[in-house]
Amino acid sequence: MTTSTISIDGKRLWTALMDLAKIGATPKGGNCRLALTELDGQGRDLVVGWMKGAGLDVTVDQIGNIFGRRAGTDANRAPVMTGSHIDTQPTGGKFDGCFGVMAGLEVIRTMNDHGIQTEAPIELAIWTNEEGSRFIPVMMGSAVFIGKEALDKTLAQRDRDGLTVGDELRKIGYAGDVPVGGRPIDAYFEAHIEQGPILEIEDKVVGVVTGSLALNWYDVVVTGMEMHAGPTPMTGRKDALYAASFLLQAVVEIARRHGPAGRGTVGVIEAIPSSRNVIPGAAKFTVDLRHADVATLAEMHKEWVAACEKVAADHGVQVDSQLVQNFPATPFDAALVGAVREGARSRGLPSMDILTGAGHDAVNMASVTPTAMIFVPCKDGISHNELEDAKPDHLEAGCNVLLDALLARAGRAA
Amino acid sequence: MTTSTISIDGKRLWTALMDLAKIGATPKGGNCRLALTELDGQGRDLVVGWMKGAGLDVTVDQIGNIFGRRAGTDANRAPVMTGSHIDTQPTGGKFDGCFGVMAGLEVIRTMNDHGIQTEAPIELAIWTNEEGSRFIPVMMGSAVFIGKEALDKTLAQRDRDGLTVGDELRKIGYAGDVPVGGRPIDAYFEAHIEQGPILEIEDKVVGVVTGSLALNWYDVVVTGMEMHAGPTPMTGRKDALYAASFLLQAVVEIARRHGPAGRGTVGVIEAIPSSRNVIPGAAKFTVDLRHADVATLAEMHKEWVAACEKVAADHGVQVDSQLVQNFPATPFDAALVGAVREGARSRGLPSMDILTGAGHDAVNMASVTPTAMIFVPCKDGISHNELEDAKPDHLEAGCNVLLDALLARAGRAA
Repeated sequence: MTTSTISIDGKRLWTALMDLAKIGATPKGGNCRLALTELDGQGRDLVVGWMKGAGLDVTVDQIGNIFGRRAGTDANRAPVMTGSHIDTQPTGGKFDGCFGVMAGLEVIRTMNDHGIQTEAPIELAIWTNEEGSRFIPVMMGSAVFIGKEALDKTLAQRDRDGLTVGDELRKIGYAGDVPVGGRPIDAYFEAHIEQGPILEIEDKVVGVVTGSLALNWYDVVVTGMEMHAGPTPMTGRKDALYAASFLLQAVVEIARRHGPAGRGTVGVIEAIPSSRNVIPGAAKFTVDLRHADVATLAEMHKEWVAACEKVAADHGVQVDSQLVQNFPATPFDAALVGAVREGARSRGLPSMDILTGAGHDAVNMASVTPTAMIFVPCKDGISHNELEDAKPDHLEAGCNVLLDALLARAGRAA
Repeated sequence: MTTSTISIDGKRLWTALMDLAKIGATPKGGNCRLALTELDGQGRDLVVGWMKGAGLDVTVDQIGNIFGRRAGTDANRAPVMTGSHIDTQPTGGKFDGCFGVMAGLEVIRTMNDHGIQTEAPIELAIWTNEEGSRFIPVMMGSAVFIGKEALDKTLAQRDRDGLTVGDELRKIGYAGDVPVGGRPIDAYFEAHIEQGPILEIEDKVVGVVTGSLALNWYDVVVTGMEMHAGPTPMTGRKDALYAASFLLQAVVEIARRHGPAGRGTVGVIEAIPSSRNVIPGAAKFTVDLRHADVATLAEMHKEWVAACEKVAADHGVQVDSQLVQNFPATPFDAALVGAVREGARSRGLPSMDILTGAGHDAVNMASVTPTAMIFVPCKDGISHNELEDAKPDHLEAGCNVLLDALLARAGRAA
């Protein structure tokens, strides 16, 4: 095998990332490029231009996923795919998602530079709305691609202003005509920043991702009684937000009881009617519970339901908790994980096996094709934050491992 | 004294209330007529029409307060004023504020019916933006009237969409040209629903309001570290919302420790960046602390500051609590309170002395003129809620007491 004799251009990779980050740049050095906004459209246009410049045949499907295809020498082989997303959180960073797409582009540019042909075609994917900040579901494009979500229903999803996915895709020119999914994919690789602190703490450069945490998402509504904050004595109250405060703590306590692989987060909360001098009649919030082990997540679910019942009884309020999303723990493909591990080993990069706690398009793809991921460290484990940062050397290393793994899977023809 | 020989028309009072409540009616039977919205403008137009129909000379001042004047026989006397507000909470009721304005109108209509002249002029006031839901400060119009808030600064206040008080007043046609305040007022009466459960529990029809609770309002920001909800282990987190949950509980605990006259409420809360899979980097919320006794409120303030320091230390977060509003406990005028008490007694209405826990324009007015308030019961003590309700008989009784008190103060000339 001669794949490790060529390497990607780390400086070109970095420059591409920084150029993309200029679109929707925030004052604190982050990015705000919410899915299907005008800025997302500008980001897509920029990257599509680069893809075409690298000779890729670019198509767009009906949910707006973008694919750039580099032909292989064997017409019978399905494509080996890599990619990620370029939409961001409202106060997101420059690397989450973008690294995976730019790494795929850089691998293709490197193959071009060296005149490398692969037996299988290579495809670079940009998935629509991975973040789920503006439209649910999260990981939208890949979910429709694998048939987990219906196209029509997804196109009809609305943001808080009532705008639909379908209309917003049309506005930015990415309502494609290619049917979504339904075609064979040989394998899927995704490079990504870790979005956690473990690689940094362990002083590793490459995380060999062996699978994902299982995840439950809940929408919770606590209903009490809306009353005036001044005249109503403390004893006569049914303060929905006060009752909710015990559930905020229960989420954290449940996750801690099932540590270190347990996670519990409340990311969104609202008091209703949201007036300074009104006792909240309702409190709405989201809950995110995760664990490496499906059985343990089921146990955490039971504890959460029990916590809701206890708070309802203790405070004389109603608690309605709806499970709105569930991802099982997903083990990645052993052969592809092995290819990633081998890439790191052959280049002498310190690496370790790791689970992903974050959802990724790769987790969706794993249900239809052999899948693996490559993690690189991010500063202080911080992501979904304008402070998100990663070292150029680490990004270069991860991109080289992606090159090796793609070539190993696709087969080098020349 | 012959004032108790005439009575108001309870049916006409009720009809006026129900007609006003059609503007901004909500499906659950409440009202949403936020200050200076188009609906507030429609409400103002309706009531101003009624005021003119009752022969009042209507003027509008520069902060949009509306005054309807009924001349007295003694040109040297300052007006005896009554009134309240017609703006509502986002999910408000039909009686809060509106009862005080409609009661004043009904008293004037009754005087007209009986050909009654008063020595002092009577003025009916509609104060701008009492609720403070859309623009701060709360009780805006009366605050500028008494000189507590500056006109220019108040006109420049913005709502969440960046719209200013001044522009919104112009849009609805209530940017008047009369200078705000700065003129003698002989006395101020305000009729209002109790907004608490005490009169109902004690089975009284009239609350003789002797003064108001002292109040502190705070804007609080807890700052932690924004990180991804999946990959970040529980031990490495600085979850601002989780830390805030202990402060939500501290607010209630502090109020309970100083019961029954203590109050503590968090009415508004927001997680930042408000994304389901991001550990909140910040949590913003409001705190409302009240007590009948200023010294006890000062003690509650100390306990609140200590709670903020403890949570900051326990959770490794920053807690910034700003005192944004303070109202001292306000005793009302003994002579006017006596007139209210006498009105209830002479009509044989069960009454009791009571403090107001809610802020009212009357609390502002008390700093510039002798002031008193008349409370009537509201169902289950509920207000600032679409379920807010009051009995026609109770409203009629409270309005008759207002009639008596106004006539007693203004002096009946014919």
